[in-house]
Amino acid sequence: MSNNDFANKLDRLAQVAVKIGLNLQPGQELVMTAPVEALELTRKITEHAYKAGASLVTTLFSDDAATLARFQHARPESFDKAPVWFYDAMAEAYRSGAARLAISGQNPGLLKGQNPDHVARSSKAQSLAMRPALELITSFHINWTIVSYATPSWAQMVFPGDPEEVAVAKLWEAIFQASRVDQDDPVAAWEAHNRRLKERVDFLNERRYAALHFRGPGTDLRVGLADGHLWSGGSGRAKNGVVCNPNIPTEEVFTTPHKDRIEGYVSSSKPLSYQGSLLDGIRVRFEGGKIVEATAEQGEEILRQVLQTDPGASSLGEVALVPHSSPISQSGILFYNTLFDENAASHIALGQAYTECMIDGDKLSEEELAARGANSSLIHIDWMIGSGEVDVDGIAQDGTAEPLMRAGEWVS
Amino acid sequence: MSNNDFANKLDRLAQVAVKIGLNLQPGQELVMTAPVEALELTRKITEHAYKAGASLVTTLFSDDAATLARFQHARPESFDKAPVWFYDAMAEAYRSGAARLAISGQNPGLLKGQNPDHVARSSKAQSLAMRPALELITSFHINWTIVSYATPSWAQMVFPGDPEEVAVAKLWEAIFQASRVDQDDPVAAWEAHNRRLKERVDFLNERRYAALHFRGPGTDLRVGLADGHLWSGGSGRAKNGVVCNPNIPTEEVFTTPHKDRIEGYVSSSKPLSYQGSLLDGIRVRFEGGKIVEATAEQGEEILRQVLQTDPGASSLGEVALVPHSSPISQSGILFYNTLFDENAASHIALGQAYTECMIDGDKLSEEELAARGANSSLIHIDWMIGSGEVDVDGIAQDGTAEPLMRAGEWVS
Repeated sequence: MSNNDFANKLDRLAQVAVKIGLNLQPGQELVMTAPVEALELTRKITEHAYKAGASLVTTLFSDDAATLARFQHARPESFDKAPVWFYDAMAEAYRSGAARLAISGQNPGLLKGQNPDHVARSSKAQSLAMRPALELITSFHINWTIVSYATPSWAQMVFPGDPEEVAVAKLWEAIFQASRVDQDDPVAAWEAHNRRLKERVDFLNERRYAALHFRGPGTDLRVGLADGHLWSGGSGRAKNGVVCNPNIPTEEVFTTPHKDRIEGYVSSSKPLSYQGSLLDGIRVRFEGGKIVEATAEQGEEILRQVLQTDPGASSLGEVALVPHSSPISQSGILFYNTLFDENAASHIALGQAYTECMIDGDKLSEEELAARGANSSLIHIDWMIGSGEVDVDGIAQDGTAEPLMRAGEWVS
Repeated sequence: MSNNDFANKLDRLAQVAVKIGLNLQPGQELVMTAPVEALELTRKITEHAYKAGASLVTTLFSDDAATLARFQHARPESFDKAPVWFYDAMAEAYRSGAARLAISGQNPGLLKGQNPDHVARSSKAQSLAMRPALELITSFHINWTIVSYATPSWAQMVFPGDPEEVAVAKLWEAIFQASRVDQDDPVAAWEAHNRRLKERVDFLNERRYAALHFRGPGTDLRVGLADGHLWSGGSGRAKNGVVCNPNIPTEEVFTTPHKDRIEGYVSSSKPLSYQGSLLDGIRVRFEGGKIVEATAEQGEEILRQVLQTDPGASSLGEVALVPHSSPISQSGILFYNTLFDENAASHIALGQAYTECMIDGDKLSEEELAARGANSSLIHIDWMIGSGEVDVDGIAQDGTAEPLMRAGEWVS
């Protein structure tokens, strides 16, 4: 890729983020979070946001090196502290109407080798501090999106055999392709893609399944769906009326499980990076909607701590279907980044449910949502359970099983 | 300077910032603001802060390019908006005990050529939004400091005839020297310097002058001092009990003028960068403590808008004495950065007074402070009025004039 070509595609990614991802409105404020390495992309997004009429753009940069320095040098007693004032400020911005754009690209293995107790405690403190902001996002209070940036540390994890520049170039190629900015008219390509996802969503919403049944190697899981669940996928309408695409890329259709109606066992099909720690070979068993056994080949201690975050952390807040032929899956790349890997395989998420995935979700009280089966938690962690060897049935209200996916592909 | 030598001095600057500037306490949180170019220094400071026992370090980066993009692309009606949620969060952090460290280094001429009305409106909106945070700083609620970083844009303004690398190296040399990190034991050097400033402060506090009288080219100004004013300089004790050095470098001793007792005219002796705009050749006349005439050879429109910020913006909140032989003045460099230039010349500041510069300042109400003459405003803008041609007299309570400085130097 020439430099010119790269600059061109990065500029298109910024445009896709502002126009498709956020659909930023004239006069709207924008709050962006980004790793400091993504400076160049934040500048392009800032420019396109102001051109689209943003009233103000504020970027909050994070620095992996500063995060790591804490684990290397800080006192053990300090790891229960999180910058509550910082996350409260984000929540306040969203509450007052600001759109949210996150750039993903942190080092997926940043905290490898650090004290698991410190990692788990700081992670829990951060989840608690982020709760008000996360609730505004999961309740779709405002338009938001996530895009990604190929940082060197991430690229080298994805392509460990390549020199840094080659790895970065390969990761950019994959990001540009998955984000549809390599196409002549990315905006039109996204509109067509959103229409295809909408057809799938409409079909599933019409079926009103009672449950999904996943079968495959190491997996025999029945996920009851919440009463009044809604399927969602592609673009969606936030409570502020703005239609946006919360993930760039996105290939999934997803809905709300019933937190008390999940039975069986399930194995992860890809590793997962959670706040700088890798989890792999996860195997859990559910009874009555709760995880009652959990093991992992890598990161088991982190997994255990995560499951103890709160009562909702050991149940599910999302179930998503992604065909094995999804373009991201077909790339053959393991991204160690949920934004990509969750769009290469069917997946489930521990923790908080999305109110947009419930009929009248924004009109129901917390108690009403819980009564219908929507889970509540400080965390929301997606992990991949689909592959070319997994079958999925939709279970009708009368108990009849209908084949939905076979060998990872949609039946119809 | 070799790379090694540079890394060494940058590390010492970080140590001076944490140990002398902040005197960061074990268990204390730190909030740092920095231009994104200063990433390397923020990492060293973060490391030293954790080694000193910081509970948490959060850096809030700013990006000149994003600031400029707003003035280039945003809608005219948007310039009255500031991120109130962002500055409120800083105030909340200080209120809860976090120390504050600012890294200075933004492009002093960033907004040259931009619409002065937009610049003035955004500046006013920002001053309003920053008020709660600024009050916690001017009232010395917590230990705080400012250090600097030689960004390319700043360096090229200071050394316009040199190639970028040469300019940056020269500016670093000047910063390292002024910050005393080129000495074998910077911490000991700072302690000795603080003792010297303390002697001068004690002398002036003993004299209890009613006013200072400045005379020089374009200047004949009598600055009444507040009733119960206190001189300050070098290290000081914040309300949280921590002794810190709010400016690195610092060469000044300073106190609180009486907001209603300033008479005469005064001319600036150096240009001044204020929020990305240059002001030069300022000339103002005071009557009854208020500026009644103001002109500037450069940036007059910005100056007029600044003076209209609020009633306190056209009076003074600080008067400071710096000998013409100060090391920073002797470097012969015009820094276009107040942190340096104010330590090369006696100066005054429009706007907010410091409560630490009033006897029992932290026990007095706003009304009591005002009754004693301490000024109040959204702004605090220092500008230089001293030079080798300026004389200063101390005017005793009985009206007797005592020579304090002659041709810019202390008389005794």
